Amino acid sequence: MDVSEIAEKVALGDRRALARAITLVESTRAEHRVQALELADRLRGMGRQALRIGLSGTPGVGKSTFIESFGLMLVRQGLRVAVLAVDPSSARSGGSILGDKTRMDHLSREPLAFIRPSPSQTHLGGVARRTREAVALCEAAGFDVVLVETVGVGQSETVVAELSDLFILLLAPAGGDELQGVKRGIMEMADIILVNKADGDLKPAAMRTCADYAGALRLLRRRPQDPDGFPKALMVSALEEVGLEKAWAEMRSLRDWRQAQGHWDIRRAAQSRHWFEDEVRQGLLRALTAKPETREAMRAMGDAVARGDMTPDSAAADMLRKLSQPL
Amino acid sequence: MDVSEIAEKVALGDRRALARAITLVESTRAEHRVQALELADRLRGMGRQALRIGLSGTPGVGKSTFIESFGLMLVRQGLRVAVLAVDPSSARSGGSILGDKTRMDHLSREPLAFIRPSPSQTHLGGVARRTREAVALCEAAGFDVVLVETVGVGQSETVVAELSDLFILLLAPAGGDELQGVKRGIMEMADIILVNKADGDLKPAAMRTCADYAGALRLLRRRPQDPDGFPKALMVSALEEVGLEKAWAEMRSLRDWRQAQGHWDIRRAAQSRHWFEDEVRQGLLRALTAKPETREAMRAMGDAVARGDMTPDSAAADMLRKLSQPL
Repeated sequence: MDVSEIAEKVALGDRRALARAITLVESTRAEHRVQALELADRLRGMGRQALRIGLSGTPGVGKSTFIESFGLMLVRQGLRVAVLAVDPSSARSGGSILGDKTRMDHLSREPLAFIRPSPSQTHLGGVARRTREAVALCEAAGFDVVLVETVGVGQSETVVAELSDLFILLLAPAGGDELQGVKRGIMEMADIILVNKADGDLKPAAMRTCADYAGALRLLRRRPQDPDGFPKALMVSALEEVGLEKAWAEMRSLRDWRQAQGHWDIRRAAQSRHWFEDEVRQGLLRALTAKPETREAMRAMGDAVARGDMTPDSAAADMLRKLSQPL
Repeated sequence: MDVSEIAEKVALGDRRALARAITLVESTRAEHRVQALELADRLRGMGRQALRIGLSGTPGVGKSTFIESFGLMLVRQGLRVAVLAVDPSSARSGGSILGDKTRMDHLSREPLAFIRPSPSQTHLGGVARRTREAVALCEAAGFDVVLVETVGVGQSETVVAELSDLFILLLAPAGGDELQGVKRGIMEMADIILVNKADGDLKPAAMRTCADYAGALRLLRRRPQDPDGFPKALMVSALEEVGLEKAWAEMRSLRDWRQAQGHWDIRRAAQSRHWFEDEVRQGLLRALTAKPETREAMRAMGDAVARGDMTPDSAAADMLRKLSQPL
């Protein structure tokens, strides 16, 4: 398949072509980059928008079960759902989140669903670009909802929040003092906090936890992009499929309000600008490792600095002068 | 004073010239950068090395009192002591650490001591470069010990560890479960943990805390740069000046061992290389904001991306092509 053929099939919603297109954007080979950019340009004109939902939750909160139950609820309503993962740590830990598709056994067999595991890349910049481009491909393929999940390692929540329309934080029931464990910065990013496992013995703890977070959210400063009552905390049981309809209704009401008030478009425009600037910065830094001559010059100058023949700063000034001329 | 005059006076240990030289390296003006590089090059040849001690501790652990007592002990031994601060948050919080020199009232009046507050810069990259260059100036001025302190906000410990020979973590006595509060990454950077306030009512808690950390340190993997028994946890009372001699003896024994084993030189060489590479990366990124034409091109392309006329990635590719030609 050439690029125009892939583009055509992706636009028709073909999942195999979509998988292939994502493989293309994941590749770091130069000729694949050229094709990936061409593909993105061809599909940009479609103007399709999905609801992009960022979902963060540490291992153990029941994220896979939630995505399975929530995704199945959406496909039963006739909606097309794509699931992508941002997991900068997957290469280190050896396994990736979503790597084990059997954890989403039913959803992965639904014709309206598309699940894509996280690629094995440690570099967060690379993961961010790949995910952003994959999200755009899923939108072009006509998906209604794109769920982007992260395990919340390091900066990955910030990346996911920067490519989502809504940011959901999934938590497990806990003792009162565990509220402290969620970093304030992540709380401030959340549009909706879902306390999962509101079932069986854990239900009372889930109720307490939910009330605690509702209280904590009320203490945050009101954000311009929020209607009354948001951000909010809700209880769900992914296992017993309780509270999912309500959570989905809240997400839609938040989306509708933001679209009506213009916040949706403003946010998407700001995100696009952010990713453009980020990509330029990443590209400038890639110049240091792309050419063998540059790598060699960096190594040789690094050696001179390590020997004490030059200060780090005057060596860097020299190197920057060289880089501004074609090496 | 011109650069050669400043260099001459710094080499003689003149504190006023040193203060002036640091002001020069703190400046972001282009002509000052040229002078700062020239100054560093002139002084590089001196070959003087101080013991660079990185000190991290959150507000409330008694860091100022510790520096005062520890510094006074050193100057009483005839050693020259410089104190610098890395505080990327100072511009935000309005005040800088060390800003209130009265907290180190006695030390600041000692002829053998030099205290320099953190400059008001929020950008950690800028703070890192300034501190690194200031450390080199203090070494050239013949100081025996350079203490670099940080409040441990965000990445600042990593910066301080990358420019120190020894990294000291100062802690306050605490309940057993507060051990969890110290991030593992910082524990792994520490060469010596000092539990301060081992005096009065807090002494029993300090003993428990010290034992807890000693236990936690034993669980860490042995690092090649450590002799038997390191990293270690010790108790001190900066207020009652107890344990400071012992702490200083441990620091010297660690330094002597590392110098004898070659780890000292290896580490300094690796640090120089690190800062060279870091400075090249920072310099490449500065190119985006240095010239008005570049800033304007970034803004205009960002606008096009925000409007949806281009994808972030193809706009970035265009921009990177433009940046590789003189704009």
